[in-house]
Amino acid sequence: MSIPAETRAQVLMQALPYIQKYHGKIIVIKYGGNAMLSEELKQAVMGDLTLLAQIGVRVVLVHGGGPEITDLMQKTGKEPVFADGLRVTDKETVELVQMALAGKVNKDLVNRISLCGGRAIGLCGIDGRMILAKARDERLGFVGEITDVNPQPILDMLAAGYIPVVSTVGCGEDGSVYNINADTAAEHIAGALGAQSLIMMTDTPGILREQGKPNTLITELTVSRAVQLIREGVISGGMIPKTHCCINAIRRGVERVFIIDGRTAHAILIEVLTDEGIGTMFR
Amino acid sequence: MSIPAETRAQVLMQALPYIQKYHGKIIVIKYGGNAMLSEELKQAVMGDLTLLAQIGVRVVLVHGGGPEITDLMQKTGKEPVFADGLRVTDKETVELVQMALAGKVNKDLVNRISLCGGRAIGLCGIDGRMILAKARDERLGFVGEITDVNPQPILDMLAAGYIPVVSTVGCGEDGSVYNINADTAAEHIAGALGAQSLIMMTDTPGILREQGKPNTLITELTVSRAVQLIREGVISGGMIPKTHCCINAIRRGVERVFIIDGRTAHAILIEVLTDEGIGTMFR
Amino acid sequence: MSIPAETRAQVLMQALPYIQKYHGKIIVIKYGGNAMLSEELKQAVMGDLTLLAQIGVRVVLVHGGGPEITDLMQKTGKEPVFADGLRVTDKETVELVQMALAGKVNKDLVNRISLCGGRAIGLCGIDGRMILAKARDERLGFVGEITDVNPQPILDMLAAGYIPVVSTVGCGEDGSVYNINADTAAEHIAGALGAQSLIMMTDTPGILREQGKPNTLITELTVSRAVQLIREGVISGGMIPKTHCCINAIRRGVERVFIIDGRTAHAILIEVLTDEGIGTMFR
Amino acid sequence: MSIPAETRAQVLMQALPYIQKYHGKIIVIKYGGNAMLSEELKQAVMGDLTLLAQIGVRVVLVHGGGPEITDLMQKTGKEPVFADGLRVTDKETVELVQMALAGKVNKDLVNRISLCGGRAIGLCGIDGRMILAKARDERLGFVGEITDVNPQPILDMLAAGYIPVVSTVGCGEDGSVYNINADTAAEHIAGALGAQSLIMMTDTPGILREQGKPNTLITELTVSRAVQLIREGVISGGMIPKTHCCINAIRRGVERVFIIDGRTAHAILIEVLTDEGIGTMFR
Amino acid sequence: MSIPAETRAQVLMQALPYIQKYHGKIIVIKYGGNAMLSEELKQAVMGDLTLLAQIGVRVVLVHGGGPEITDLMQKTGKEPVFADGLRVTDKETVELVQMALAGKVNKDLVNRISLCGGRAIGLCGIDGRMILAKARDERLGFVGEITDVNPQPILDMLAAGYIPVVSTVGCGEDGSVYNINADTAAEHIAGALGAQSLIMMTDTPGILREQGKPNTLITELTVSRAVQLIREGVISGGMIPKTHCCINAIRRGVERVFIIDGRTAHAILIEVLTDEGIGTMFR
Amino acid sequence: MSIPAETRAQVLMQALPYIQKYHGKIIVIKYGGNAMLSEELKQAVMGDLTLLAQIGVRVVLVHGGGPEITDLMQKTGKEPVFADGLRVTDKETVELVQMALAGKVNKDLVNRISLCGGRAIGLCGIDGRMILAKARDERLGFVGEITDVNPQPILDMLAAGYIPVVSTVGCGEDGSVYNINADTAAEHIAGALGAQSLIMMTDTPGILREQGKPNTLITELTVSRAVQLIREGVISGGMIPKTHCCINAIRRGVERVFIIDGRTAHAILIEVLTDEGIGTMFR
Repeated sequence: MSIPAETRAQVLMQALPYIQKYHGKIIVIKYGGNAMLSEELKQAVMGDLTLLAQIGVRVVLVHGGGPEITDLMQKTGKEPVFADGLRVTDKETVELVQMALAGKVNKDLVNRISLCGGRAIGLCGIDGRMILAKARDERLGFVGEITDVNPQPILDMLAAGYIPVVSTVGCGEDGSVYNINADTAAEHIAGALGAQSLIMMTDTPGILREQGKPNTLITELTVSRAVQLIREGVISGGMIPKTHCCINAIRRGVERVFIIDGRTAHAILIEVLTDEGIGTMFR
Repeated sequence: MSIPAETRAQVLMQALPYIQKYHGKIIVIKYGGNAMLSEELKQAVMGDLTLLAQIGVRVVLVHGGGPEITDLMQKTGKEPVFADGLRVTDKETVELVQMALAGKVNKDLVNRISLCGGRAIGLCGIDGRMILAKARDERLGFVGEITDVNPQPILDMLAAGYIPVVSTVGCGEDGSVYNINADTAAEHIAGALGAQSLIMMTDTPGILREQGKPNTLITELTVSRAVQLIREGVISGGMIPKTHCCINAIRRGVERVFIIDGRTAHAILIEVLTDEGIGTMFR
Repeated sequence: MSIPAETRAQVLMQALPYIQKYHGKIIVIKYGGNAMLSEELKQAVMGDLTLLAQIGVRVVLVHGGGPEITDLMQKTGKEPVFADGLRVTDKETVELVQMALAGKVNKDLVNRISLCGGRAIGLCGIDGRMILAKARDERLGFVGEITDVNPQPILDMLAAGYIPVVSTVGCGEDGSVYNINADTAAEHIAGALGAQSLIMMTDTPGILREQGKPNTLITELTVSRAVQLIREGVISGGMIPKTHCCINAIRRGVERVFIIDGRTAHAILIEVLTDEGIGTMFR
Repeated sequence: MSIPAETRAQVLMQALPYIQKYHGKIIVIKYGGNAMLSEELKQAVMGDLTLLAQIGVRVVLVHGGGPEITDLMQKTGKEPVFADGLRVTDKETVELVQMALAGKVNKDLVNRISLCGGRAIGLCGIDGRMILAKARDERLGFVGEITDVNPQPILDMLAAGYIPVVSTVGCGEDGSVYNINADTAAEHIAGALGAQSLIMMTDTPGILREQGKPNTLITELTVSRAVQLIREGVISGGMIPKTHCCINAIRRGVERVFIIDGRTAHAILIEVLTDEGIGTMFR
Repeated sequence: MSIPAETRAQVLMQALPYIQKYHGKIIVIKYGGNAMLSEELKQAVMGDLTLLAQIGVRVVLVHGGGPEITDLMQKTGKEPVFADGLRVTDKETVELVQMALAGKVNKDLVNRISLCGGRAIGLCGIDGRMILAKARDERLGFVGEITDVNPQPILDMLAAGYIPVVSTVGCGEDGSVYNINADTAAEHIAGALGAQSLIMMTDTPGILREQGKPNTLITELTVSRAVQLIREGVISGGMIPKTHCCINAIRRGVERVFIIDGRTAHAILIEVLTDEGIGTMFR
Repeated sequence: MSIPAETRAQVLMQALPYIQKYHGKIIVIKYGGNAMLSEELKQAVMGDLTLLAQIGVRVVLVHGGGPEITDLMQKTGKEPVFADGLRVTDKETVELVQMALAGKVNKDLVNRISLCGGRAIGLCGIDGRMILAKARDERLGFVGEITDVNPQPILDMLAAGYIPVVSTVGCGEDGSVYNINADTAAEHIAGALGAQSLIMMTDTPGILREQGKPNTLITELTVSRAVQLIREGVISGGMIPKTHCCINAIRRGVERVFIIDGRTAHAILIEVLTDEGIGTMFR
């Protein structure tokens, strides 16, 4: 349990080349899934961010918060409405989304980073008119599609020494508020920032050659190979849109995109500061 | 209805000495009451802020949001609890407060400022560990008393060219979240910023020599005279704590504190940019 | 006479989009004609400049001063000399020009801006070797033609927070001093500065479709249309060289050039900060 | 005539300690007298200034211009008026003073510095409200007494890399213009700038123990000794006010004040960059 | 041998509070003894420095180099000379010292830091006239006593992002070069820099209550207690001057001074980035 | 012997255009040969550098030090070894080279500049990994060929106000140290810095049309003409590699390269600050 001093020194020294490599670079972390539900994992992720920021990485956290939205909707007795089988986000719902994301999840994450000794500022896409959006489909109401990302507020926060924590709520030209898919928002934000890396935290070990067999993990993937794997059906179901986000991020100029397992404690640190890659890396 | 060009020019020119006077100065505006309920007044206030910021005043907006909190509590069927006749803010309630203030009211105000062409960032006392607080009274739960205000995040936002919009939610050493009285928070924030002015928007014309008679408005007041008026009972009821906030702000070094009538459209502009003082000024 | 508070607020609010539009932009104002003779108009113009500078416009004032030159020549008993029907500017005359412009008019304008609470520095084309010129025609003596404009001194004054007030006296490679036409100088200076706008103050309402009929004012004009109007004789007499200056300024990259009526009090403010365009705008 | 290379190298090397000593220091030069009348001397002085500025000294030139004023008054047929034996400066006269100083002498000096390859900006006390003054004696009209010097415009010009050339015209609270004695102005400006040195160019070799005998030159003088010499009558006539200016400059914090002989070519260079002090130094 | 990922993450996270504590602080490391002789230890020390610099500590390395000096003297057949039992450093010897320290040891250390990916610049006390010294005792020749330390060159290197590596060679007013004791130099340099910490690398575990018994290590010591221990003879022999350096550094304002065992690999990292203090800390 | 004041002033004034011309420009001086051996010449060169730096030239000194290397080798009894008739630089030799250059010559020059009142920092190619090299020929050992020059450390020193003094020792990817030819290093450094001039100090008057006849000095030479003169045998022997360095420097973008006679005192000053070119200039 107590780690000997030599081991500690060894671990720190082995991190040096990675610290040098990422110094001053922007890493966008899409935070979600189980890593967001367990108290312990949440604490580990916030610690990882704080450490990375402290050693000179420019860290940006992008989060959704499905469970918190559902929770607030249930509390307010708001019934889900469907149109042609799709969930409708009416004005009242998008207000609850805004409250749950920008009011609850966002500030809770900022609070936790502070407790780790980090300095964070919580933003949403409305702040500084950062995420501009329009309705994706009139029938779905305030489900938004990103029309533009203005990275200036994030860059300003980074320049002032804060970790920006971003809720994926967008705003329209007319002031309407939209609920934005967090994976898509992370992809756009990483692209607009010219980020060096985008790390997508998921509830899977990464992309597997065979479903359910973690030992068939594909550790590295080019865009063209990823497209092929979707076509071949190796990547399927919920991994398809996630893979599309990864591909798009690469196309928007992000150097490396990682799908990592958010269920592993300190997965981010392990991915960034050690030679043990976990998950799948897109180039 | 159409204002002649000469009149326009005259008004603009008459504003010049006030623009010169407030250039680069910090004005904290405590926003609340009816000015926050009427759509029209809300729009007018956000326009006023945007204009002041645009001509070089460093504007900070501090807001509460009682009605929005009540609204969310009702929607979630949360029953008010009392201890010794005082409202208790349990953990669930303070979460609703956080959502209503930092998630709803705050971002809505930011959104409106954007629609006026201004650049705003919404913060709460958790961001950058800005408002530190502790429980005021154990029995009341998460009703907070400010222990310290760190003005740095506000100064950083001002330096980056944003109008900071601040929700009065505070955080404790242990990460607890507290509901903070907005008048008190505004007083502390103005003091910590070394603000030139603090403007308290209320639902009264100011301090009246005789209750209910607007023509007995006291336009200027020293701290000692204010203390005396409280003692004499001229200032009474809800105006007493508000007056105490004004007095404390002056004692914390704010040069001028104004109580103005938020029910008058563009009351802020009129107070700041014209020679027509409205409301009561504390020196 | 006393303007009601609501009207004042309304006027100020309606100026907001214009203040936003011109923030940080360079506006060069060519000042001359009747606006320069009436004490009242002079005061209004200086007030306009000060207000524009105060709200963030980078204002540059370029002036001539025919009447002051004539006045000094008369006082010194200097007889005008002509060569082939053109006025000759001998060495003694150009010295009087320099004194009248750079010594009298220029510093008087600076003085007036100070009285409005503005900060101005008076320069002429000799300062920082700003306006380089050569003789336009040997027979005319020291009547100069601009060979180059170095905008650095003006940019330095703007950066240091001053309103630069520029006399249109130029200097030659050999140190000779030249009298420069103020309209031409304004055109060159606006071009060299990459100004957003150039405002030419004249004694006419702008370009009229029919001479002497103000209600035939052409409010907007493209360069090609202006050339055509000259060809057609609609623009004639003294308006031809002025129109050429406007056209050249546009060709040098100035976005918008205005011919406005300097006889209207606060014509500049009305043009820049209200939706009432007065005069003719070239694009 | 042709100076051998070794001699040149030797002279340059011997200047090194003086260049090091004055690097970044402010030297105010009061320019007047014969040095201003001879074309050759004028050229030498402007060359000296340019060289000093080029090697890193922060040079400020303050000038009067009696002969140019007289010349313009004669040309305009303006008769001198006296009140109780003192020359009266009426409004018309002060306008001529302003034109002769700020329009003629000032810009001519700027022009000459440019010809030496230096960068200069000509200012007068009106620019940036630099020299504030009031009437010294109502009966004398616009003869000014300095009430305040704002050194900011000079510091701004120095920071932007220009040699400020200052005409000693002052302005009153109400916009009146005053003629200011140049020695007094130089003393005030050097004091307000916290100058390291003030060099007064005169038509004498310095302070002499015996009138008319240059070999009785006093090379160094303390303030108390100077006061004593005035009392003893050794310093007399026109040297008394000049000596008072020197004494006052020292009292305002200027480290060293020099009275040098402006009739010697390159007297400034010799005083500043060689070990041959010429003239009298006050400490 | 292979450290599991969780252990790595744990070690990195446990370093976070120390990284936060030392961020931007100056740590001076006096390097010498066995840590300088073993290739492996040398590599470990340079790695430690590079890592600390990379995570935001402002690291300064001060070194001597007795063995290298002795080696060069032997190679050149230079015989040690003694006067009254003390070693005499004649001109030839101090030249060898300068070559061995500033030419050999210094640049070798810089080279090693480069190989770790760090950026270093090697200086000695002659560079930028950093360490001024005089002869300690005429009979000893060029053995120097520090008269002044100018920390500017070190601060300039830190500001430009380099790790300054400093040889303890000093220079006199007349250009003489002196050999300076490295412990003393480190103490003076740490003081002049206002360093947060000074770490003295030695060949002992620290200060022991009983000679030769490492388990009697005193982990913390106040200045007064240290003085007492010298008086009591607990601190004796070669530890006395070293202890005096520690005491003096504290008196010069260094917050914490550490004597650590340079024979332990990564002793610096362990001391700075873990909760395991090794060696003795003076406060 | 005593130079009259007027002559001094004249010399200083005549230097003005040259000071203006070189202000802010980078001049690299390759220092070597006799100018390095005579105490008097050494002092003159350091004075020249200090003066040039003081008046705003960005001076860089690059030096070798053959005699000092030979001297140290002799002292240590190191026998020269040859392979195929070429001198072999084994590990021990390159260590002596490093000590003699970076430890002795370099710091002595820095020391002398300090005595002239200048601020210098001594660097070698190892500092900041400035000169990267590889073995030129395996059989010759550590004789290096430059693979890359990183000018950043020199630019950082210049920006911090120091005169960089550079020893031509290089380092390899693996940390090996190499002895670099100083002429070649100067050429590469001047090129990498985008220097305005490179001055090569030699023991000849420059390039002569006829060997041994100084009056056949070629004062100006184009690259193509220089190539031709080598081909024609006019340039021969040791002047061939030197000429190649000059040609290469021009090709790397240096504007002017001078071969001057280091045996003439203050040759640099005379070349740079007077109209008397000495030596040969390549364009």
